[in-house]
Amino acid sequence: MQVYEGLAGIPVVKSSISYVDGENGILEYRGIPIQELVENSNFLELSYLLIFGKIPDENELLKFELDIKENLKYFERILDIVKSLPENLHPMKILQSLVPVFAFDDIDTDIMKEENKYRQTVRIMALVPVVIAFSKRLKEGKEIVFPDKNFYYTENFLYMLNGKSVEKIYWQTLDKTLILHAEHTINASTFTAMVVVSTLADLYACVSSAIGSLSGRLHGGANEEVYKMLSSLPNDEKIIREYIENKLKNKDKIMGFGHRIYKTYDPRAKIMKYLLENLQKEKPTPLLKKAEIFEKIALEYLEEKKIYTNIDFYSGVLYSQMGIPSDFFTTIFAMARVPGWIAHCIEYVRNNKLFRPTQVYDGGHNIHYKDIKSL
Amino acid sequence: MQVYEGLAGIPVVKSSISYVDGENGILEYRGIPIQELVENSNFLELSYLLIFGKIPDENELLKFELDIKENLKYFERILDIVKSLPENLHPMKILQSLVPVFAFDDIDTDIMKEENKYRQTVRIMALVPVVIAFSKRLKEGKEIVFPDKNFYYTENFLYMLNGKSVEKIYWQTLDKTLILHAEHTINASTFTAMVVVSTLADLYACVSSAIGSLSGRLHGGANEEVYKMLSSLPNDEKIIREYIENKLKNKDKIMGFGHRIYKTYDPRAKIMKYLLENLQKEKPTPLLKKAEIFEKIALEYLEEKKIYTNIDFYSGVLYSQMGIPSDFFTTIFAMARVPGWIAHCIEYVRNNKLFRPTQVYDGGHNIHYKDIKSL
Ligand SMILES: CC(C)(COP(=O)(O)OP(=O)(O)OC[C@H]1O[C@@H](n2cnc3c(N)ncnc32)[C@H](O)[C@@H]1OP(=O)(O)O)[C@@H](O)C(=O)NCCC(=O)NCCS
Ligand SMILES: CC(C)(COP(=O)(O)OP(=O)(O)OC[C@H]1O[C@@H](n2cnc3c(N)ncnc32)[C@H](O)[C@@H]1OP(=O)(O)O)[C@@H](O)C(=O)NCCC(=O)NCCS
Repeated sequence: MQVYEGLAGIPVVKSSISYVDGENGILEYRGIPIQELVENSNFLELSYLLIFGKIPDENELLKFELDIKENLKYFERILDIVKSLPENLHPMKILQSLVPVFAFDDIDTDIMKEENKYRQTVRIMALVPVVIAFSKRLKEGKEIVFPDKNFYYTENFLYMLNGKSVEKIYWQTLDKTLILHAEHTINASTFTAMVVVSTLADLYACVSSAIGSLSGRLHGGANEEVYKMLSSLPNDEKIIREYIENKLKNKDKIMGFGHRIYKTYDPRAKIMKYLLENLQKEKPTPLLKKAEIFEKIALEYLEEKKIYTNIDFYSGVLYSQMGIPSDFFTTIFAMARVPGWIAHCIEYVRNNKLFRPTQVYDGGHNIHYKDIKSL
Repeated sequence: MQVYEGLAGIPVVKSSISYVDGENGILEYRGIPIQELVENSNFLELSYLLIFGKIPDENELLKFELDIKENLKYFERILDIVKSLPENLHPMKILQSLVPVFAFDDIDTDIMKEENKYRQTVRIMALVPVVIAFSKRLKEGKEIVFPDKNFYYTENFLYMLNGKSVEKIYWQTLDKTLILHAEHTINASTFTAMVVVSTLADLYACVSSAIGSLSGRLHGGANEEVYKMLSSLPNDEKIIREYIENKLKNKDKIMGFGHRIYKTYDPRAKIMKYLLENLQKEKPTPLLKKAEIFEKIALEYLEEKKIYTNIDFYSGVLYSQMGIPSDFFTTIFAMARVPGWIAHCIEYVRNNKLFRPTQVYDGGHNIHYKDIKSL
């Protein structure tokens, strides 16, 4: 019997959350082109769209935002727990560890009840940024900054993270990159969340597990690698070219290029680059210049193989501009992907079927314990 | 395009860890019949067998046991963290939350390195029982009992849990039930662990995610339900019969009966019942009598449909005999399944392929943001 390796090409669900056309470089959320959403929407509205299937009207959006803010009241409990954790724990481990705790005194977490889905959703969305910001401040030995309900979601996040309010161009740019990362069909972390929810586990269990999955270096870690690579290189065309040629000669992959699905320029990478250029008009972004030189040279070699820049090439550059340390990059990806994970869980349980694949057994039979033990 | 619902019947891996023949009621671990292992082995030796593929010789087993004991040194850190968690958090949430923290100061957790696999394995096996026991003592407001390195694994667990050392018949019986629950091919939690490891996440991330999956009531929760059902019924044949007839009339499922794979008596249920009868010879086990009456009557109705007693029917009865509260039953299942999860993760990455299935998209296309927003 055949093994379906990595389940490549095997459909596991009927879904209407997002659509990717890798040949033509198209990404749609709920049928709307990603470009239009980045231009016109914001991360909270977009989260609502992904999770509940429609763009909220003014009242729905206001309620959603207020319900998220309401959950910020738990921040002191979060702080106590994060403080009790070992100092050197990786930020992704802290995040995976904290999400199950968000249940607090939630006794009935039955995922089949509509009110529970909603309560869990707003709580997770509220507290993930708090955990990230507190962890970062603690790690740097800096004073903790409490959430401020007057700020919009992403503004509040950067405020807690950096210890002071930031200019609009910063938090708006970050908000748009969260939109870009929010959802991407059945990737490994989203699939993890779906397998977990299929047992009727609650959203705390699902999102924590998805974070575990995202922490693997084949999934969420590439932007950190790109950042390290660019930081380590000088701003010198000749040396960058040598570096790239060397990599290719050794058959190494160049981080930030290539994609399983996109066989053209990743539409998200295009937008990410545009956002960075826009930011640069107002603020110096020293790494951008180097990134552009790197990209130009890399594409000279890769384009003929239909290998193009992917989203992770520019995201690390952008995050570093926001004051986010590189070991926190993947937590930002997680924060952005929360609505995608939740949307897929809620969609899946509506027509639930427990995931229980099978195996091809290739071991022995009827071996006797005593025969082996006496060897 | 067809959706493979719940991936039923789809092989995702070649595996030699365990084998189930549901028609004939056979379960083998590494080719050895479960009966022989329960009779002759113990949980630590069995864990080694599952994870490393062979029965350890005396030195290997001694080293494995010592390496596990060595990790008990982290117990104070565990206690600090568990103490910082909200009081009413469900024990399964505490366990999912604590496992990522086991990384502590582990900086290189790269799962492709053999020494890391081993270090993570012994640490997780050491600390899962500590978390369960501490949570239980804290929840009951009782003094914490620290691990004692002089005790064997399961003995030490019951010692920490109950606050005093227990008779051999108790911990040996629990040890054998851990063997029964240790592994069962590609169930939902094991599959979760495999999807997570396929991103090259470490074992802390994998096991925590598997615990999230096990927490769902379609997976790990049936023994708690059986226990509640039996506790709520009087020791009266007539009333039990009425209860069963009523359930069947309403097309409700009777907890502790039926299985997706076994179409005969679950071989594990048979052993579980034997262990309970054995225990009863020494100790009164009040619930057992009632369970036996219940089973006899239920099978009168179910056997003709090839529905038999499953492992969960007797496990709750047994756990309650060990002083384990019913909301902790699923954590015992988790503790037992740790070696099964780890064995599958280590087997899978040896020949790794990222899990990335696909979807059938059934939503719209090229919808415009502005058209909707202006509705
Ligand atoms: C993303 C990725 C895994 C997709 O890989 P894939 O679809 O499985 O494609 P393959 O790995 O089979 O590569 C196909 C060919 O392109 C080459 N290739 C793919 N990505 C490359 C890269 N980034 N640099 C250099 N060569 C690359 C491969 O070496 C291979 O060449 P060959 O046919 O001569 O052996 C891969 O492009 C990659 O590892 N990129 C770098 C990491 C990264 O940026 N990841 C983030 C993705 S969002
Ligand atoms: C385990 C279980 C989900 C397996 O189910 P499955 O293989 O998918 O079988 P189905 O649910 O399709 O049931 C097939 C038929 O048997 C009946 N059946 C199965 N288990 C039953 C039970 N425990 N009590 C009464 N009827 C049962 C179903 O009602 C159905 O009858 P129908 O054909 O007249 O509609 C199911 O037996 C169950 O829910 N059992 C109780 C929960 C439990 O103990 N779980 C722990 C398993 S280790």
